[in-house]
Amino acid sequence: MLPKPLKGVVPPMVTPLLDNETLDVAGLERLVEHILGGHVHGLFLLGTTGEAPNLSYELRHELVKRVCKQVKGRVPVLVGVTDTVFPESLRLAKTAEKAGAAAVVAAPPYYFAPGQPELVEYYTHLANHLPLPLFLYNMPSHTKVMIDPYTVRTLSEHANIAGIKDSSANIVYFNAVRHILRDREDFSVLIGPEEALGEVVLMGAHGGVCGGANLFPQLFVDTYAAAMAGDVAGVLALQERIMTVSASLYSVGRHMSSFLKGVKCALNLMGICSDFMAEPFSRFRDEERAVIRSRLISLGVKVVKE
Amino acid sequence: MLPKPLKGVVPPMVTPLLDNETLDVAGLERLVEHILGGHVHGLFLLGTTGEAPNLSYELRHELVKRVCKQVKGRVPVLVGVTDTVFPESLRLAKTAEKAGAAAVVAAPPYYFAPGQPELVEYYTHLANHLPLPLFLYNMPSHTKVMIDPYTVRTLSEHANIAGIKDSSANIVYFNAVRHILRDREDFSVLIGPEEALGEVVLMGAHGGVCGGANLFPQLFVDTYAAAMAGDVAGVLALQERIMTVSASLYSVGRHMSSFLKGVKCALNLMGICSDFMAEPFSRFRDEERAVIRSRLISLGVKVVKE
Amino acid sequence: MLPKPLKGVVPPMVTPLLDNETLDVAGLERLVEHILGGHVHGLFLLGTTGEAPNLSYELRHELVKRVCKQVKGRVPVLVGVTDTVFPESLRLAKTAEKAGAAAVVAAPPYYFAPGQPELVEYYTHLANHLPLPLFLYNMPSHTKVMIDPYTVRTLSEHANIAGIKDSSANIVYFNAVRHILRDREDFSVLIGPEEALGEVVLMGAHGGVCGGANLFPQLFVDTYAAAMAGDVAGVLALQERIMTVSASLYSVGRHMSSFLKGVKCALNLMGICSDFMAEPFSRFRDEERAVIRSRLISLGVKVVKE
Amino acid sequence: MLPKPLKGVVPPMVTPLLDNETLDVAGLERLVEHILGGHVHGLFLLGTTGEAPNLSYELRHELVKRVCKQVKGRVPVLVGVTDTVFPESLRLAKTAEKAGAAAVVAAPPYYFAPGQPELVEYYTHLANHLPLPLFLYNMPSHTKVMIDPYTVRTLSEHANIAGIKDSSANIVYFNAVRHILRDREDFSVLIGPEEALGEVVLMGAHGGVCGGANLFPQLFVDTYAAAMAGDVAGVLALQERIMTVSASLYSVGRHMSSFLKGVKCALNLMGICSDFMAEPFSRFRDEERAVIRSRLISLGVKVVKE
Repeated sequence: MLPKPLKGVVPPMVTPLLDNETLDVAGLERLVEHILGGHVHGLFLLGTTGEAPNLSYELRHELVKRVCKQVKGRVPVLVGVTDTVFPESLRLAKTAEKAGAAAVVAAPPYYFAPGQPELVEYYTHLANHLPLPLFLYNMPSHTKVMIDPYTVRTLSEHANIAGIKDSSANIVYFNAVRHILRDREDFSVLIGPEEALGEVVLMGAHGGVCGGANLFPQLFVDTYAAAMAGDVAGVLALQERIMTVSASLYSVGRHMSSFLKGVKCALNLMGICSDFMAEPFSRFRDEERAVIRSRLISLGVKVVKE
Repeated sequence: MLPKPLKGVVPPMVTPLLDNETLDVAGLERLVEHILGGHVHGLFLLGTTGEAPNLSYELRHELVKRVCKQVKGRVPVLVGVTDTVFPESLRLAKTAEKAGAAAVVAAPPYYFAPGQPELVEYYTHLANHLPLPLFLYNMPSHTKVMIDPYTVRTLSEHANIAGIKDSSANIVYFNAVRHILRDREDFSVLIGPEEALGEVVLMGAHGGVCGGANLFPQLFVDTYAAAMAGDVAGVLALQERIMTVSASLYSVGRHMSSFLKGVKCALNLMGICSDFMAEPFSRFRDEERAVIRSRLISLGVKVVKE
Repeated sequence: MLPKPLKGVVPPMVTPLLDNETLDVAGLERLVEHILGGHVHGLFLLGTTGEAPNLSYELRHELVKRVCKQVKGRVPVLVGVTDTVFPESLRLAKTAEKAGAAAVVAAPPYYFAPGQPELVEYYTHLANHLPLPLFLYNMPSHTKVMIDPYTVRTLSEHANIAGIKDSSANIVYFNAVRHILRDREDFSVLIGPEEALGEVVLMGAHGGVCGGANLFPQLFVDTYAAAMAGDVAGVLALQERIMTVSASLYSVGRHMSSFLKGVKCALNLMGICSDFMAEPFSRFRDEERAVIRSRLISLGVKVVKE
Repeated sequence: MLPKPLKGVVPPMVTPLLDNETLDVAGLERLVEHILGGHVHGLFLLGTTGEAPNLSYELRHELVKRVCKQVKGRVPVLVGVTDTVFPESLRLAKTAEKAGAAAVVAAPPYYFAPGQPELVEYYTHLANHLPLPLFLYNMPSHTKVMIDPYTVRTLSEHANIAGIKDSSANIVYFNAVRHILRDREDFSVLIGPEEALGEVVLMGAHGGVCGGANLFPQLFVDTYAAAMAGDVAGVLALQERIMTVSASLYSVGRHMSSFLKGVKCALNLMGICSDFMAEPFSRFRDEERAVIRSRLISLGVKVVKE
């Protein structure tokens, strides 16, 4: 069920919430259809954009079951199982497998920062026990540790490790990982920052996990297609739109949470789902919401809420 | 039940494990008595030294119940409820309250790094819902965020926030916090790094959360008493022993985990409990164990295991 | 004399030394011709690769005069004037102007880390007094500060600021800078890490300041040309060679200095110049030199020294 | 001429300037007498507080000569020779030696961050060539590197290395350094952050390099004396004053430069010297100046300027 390598645009889905422990079920259904309507190549639940580390476990399991049921195999579903608690990662992976997900994704445990040999051991143990293929997730800004390219190479030889999602935004790191895996065309290299999608696909990446695809899935699918076709001019034209979205919506607040708050606020204004955020965050207040509103209008987006 | 302020030596207890999901029950009982035998003033479960973020929830709840039952009010028990999942913090706090714990302790949620206003909101919401008094826990090396002294001051005015444990090791930060709280003799300021216990108590701190007190509780209790008595010469003499322990046992490995592995290995060699560590860590191998062994002997400690 | 925008490959020249205060004059002449022989589009003296901050001022001035005289206008020469001492930056810029250099380059002063408004003031004062156009140099790993894209935009409106060299390796930053300057086709955006040359030129960067071009100038010139022609397949083929060079030569030592030591050692083995390094660094010892030697041979490079 | 160990309060003198290249000679003379009038035990020129890295070389040499002449042996003068340029460190040290200074002080070269073995080599070479005893200067926030306690121990065995000034503010580091040097009562351990003076002297440090002693030298001398006498209550009373000064004057601006700007502004308001700052900084504007003014008055300080 998991293509090897997995290629294309795999949006890290926002988790629509009514409160800290309740899914916005109707909003979730609309959001899934909105994203799939953009012809994406997969769907990634419970990543950073999905606020996964802040969600209750019951809610995480429920989300996986609901979305897999709704997607019904239209695209592969990837499930984030990043956790500091090893058994909780396994438990969620089992739910994912039963629900029909295609793979799981795990960043390093994020309280203690492990050394590289500790990462090799950890991921090996995890992959040994997982019922689904594993994607490594490099996210140093949140986990305090880079998964070294040599570590990636070593782990890529495990039969149950299928790829890496790199959200470091480090261009030298990406090229080093791609180079060290140049003989492994079956091992996916996906990139986090949506602002880099076009260029890394031109350079051989298999795709991107683009947060902005919650809002504008077709934009990223088109960019991916242009890059795959080697259409540099096409990529550049779409890149201008991607950067305009990024500059407009992702830095309205002052903290690291600006991206998440901006996306949820925009989804709410577009009438797709609730903008409630799990603790420790809270949705944008009126002032920031008004800014997002006017910027969406400038972007030509139909705003249906105040 | 919680003294205001809480004063003295409150060891952050190691969590004895047989495997990722099983407590070493016999070891745990020995460890609790070993620590209480050193006349400590409290016991802190499920902190960083307790590997809390890596332990299964079931195990955390079980640990709290067992230890509170065993301690039976001999000293106040504090329970770490640090979590990225808000409802899990509350759930564990409820167990702690029912079991008879005196307070809970929470570091900032540690995947996303919140800004200061977000910290104020988060801790206020948490304290509003907690059935026990809350200690803030400043741990920037692991959470990526400092709790600003002004934030501490603001939060200290919440009726359900009782103190702060500062593990930043930053001497300017400690003095700034103490100064900003100088009119709040009821609000505990406890310090993490055991190498600083004597000096910060001389300067007005209320006590320390000393990891080494798992091994040598009386050493830290004596240091605290000397500092409280203003006996500078006494503090200096004991400080030499503290530093010798630190230099001998805490940097045998190469990674951030060296401290934890060293303490657990030493406790095992002393016949107190298992040295199993939860994922992503693993116990010291033979080579490092031999180093810890010979250093314990140099320290004059009775080693009862190979 | 300075094209607007400056485009192409502008190697950051290594500074050949006999000792801390003496240029390797013969080596320097060979190196300049070796680089120019690769059809590069400019030459950047006294950057990070040139060990500029470690060189005596007399030597810096001498180097600028010698190289400008030798280059004789064949390509524009850029001179690094990065300094914590404002008047020394000006003094070196005057020498550069007299010698016939085309522009100067300055990273933020690198002891105290300025805030963004302080950067705007600093660069404005500097540009006001400089006799040559200025390139900003974003180098956060060494200066501890990012030049924010908004700061770049503000400074780009100064008549005497001509471009930016970005060595952050941050792919989101690069795209944000390019986007914020999308209406300023006269303002150069050059990229530091050579591993990114092809892809950023495909995405609209004007060129690269590639350290490896000291060794293999034609390789980077060819990559630039392929990218400018939109020849993605050509870029990918050359990229493999660039990554092989990078993986072979730049990480033989253990410290941040590995890149510099590797390049100087290779240049020496190739018979081009001395591998002496200014304090606080020292050249590779026999062991590392043997590794570099065998890797150069694997790369098919003619090695003429033991 | 240099006591072994050097003990007491050694203020890091502010450098009074009229512009980027001109000393405020009259202000400098007043400042030296103001500081010496507080019965300090030494004077440290050209440190971080002295804005040394931003000053022209000519001015640095002039400052050393003027101050040594004025001090005329009343206290030992230490001269900061921190530089990325090795020969410039030596040149300034020669001027210091001729002028009658007692020692020099050097932080690691601060553009490239050296590894520990590179630090050992660097400081060994430097000490071999210096005409005066050398103090190591640990300043990781500015140099990006900690001088490891083992490195300090190794270097302490060099005949021409006399002590360390630690400005890390890391309480574990300080205790580790003191412990590793416990048999070296001739080797000075001085501490940077003035907020820690009392407590570290109680714990065995030899003294402090307190920036606030530019303003209130007697306050720090009294604190040192109380700590040396083991008078804990006395230290605590003075500590409250030190913290009030710190909280009042050092965080009025928003950037890392707030401390420097606050001290210079206060000195100017007190009628002692100019508040001009070398590039890339500039003096406080009217708004911040008014805050400093009112806070000085609250502190009971006589303000003689608008």
